[in-house]
Amino acid sequence: MTSTGRPLVRLAELEIDPAHLEAYKVLLAREIEASVEKEPGVLMLYALSVRGSPGQIRIVEIYADQDAYEAHLRSPHFLEYKSATAGMVRSLRLIETDPIMLGGRPG
Amino acid sequence: MTSTGRPLVRLAELEIDPAHLEAYKVLLAREIEASVEKEPGVLMLYALSVRGSPGQIRIVEIYADQDAYEAHLRSPHFLEYKSATAGMVRSLRLIETDPIMLGGRPG
Repeated sequence: MTSTGRPLVRLAELEIDPAHLEAYKVLLAREIEASVEKEPGVLMLYALSVRGSPGQIRIVEIYADQDAYEAHLRSPHFLEYKSATAGMVRSLRLIETDPIMLGGRPG
Repeated sequence: MTSTGRPLVRLAELEIDPAHLEAYKVLLAREIEASVEKEPGVLMLYALSVRGSPGQIRIVEIYADQDAYEAHLRSPHFLEYKSATAGMVRSLRLIETDPIMLGGRPG
């Protein structure tokens, strides 16, 4: 496994079972908090719900490089999130992207 | 018009005519550069193309508040971008979101 050295920017589009939405959001927030705290290679995880369709979740994910992404997938907090939310997720689409322009930063 | 004082996080999903894609990306990058340079209320504009479907563009947009967003829509660089790219955009979906968790920051 070699590092590409380039940041990975990915999007995840999920549909969550409405009956489990509040529990899902708590688990997701906890997973994000642990990831950015414990993994320096996890640069950004922004989780959003689509207004008017709260079960539709979008996550903007930025990792330092391919290795950081793969390490994230093996982290205990990610595996725990995946297992705990497996029955709540109706669909999941992972989108790889090529950045055109990353302008500014929040805050 | 009153300020809500809360950041606005929005997503735009565009489909660009492949014949105009390279020109579109140049105009989009220029618009983003001008926006983050000239408008303190434009916190973040991340433009991505979907890998394997380069005409599919996603833009993650964060504005300081509703006023900043409305000012952006009236800015000369945004109006110029809208006018110059009007014939290149096949579809545009604007998605308002409610943040669940904004973790970390790139860079």
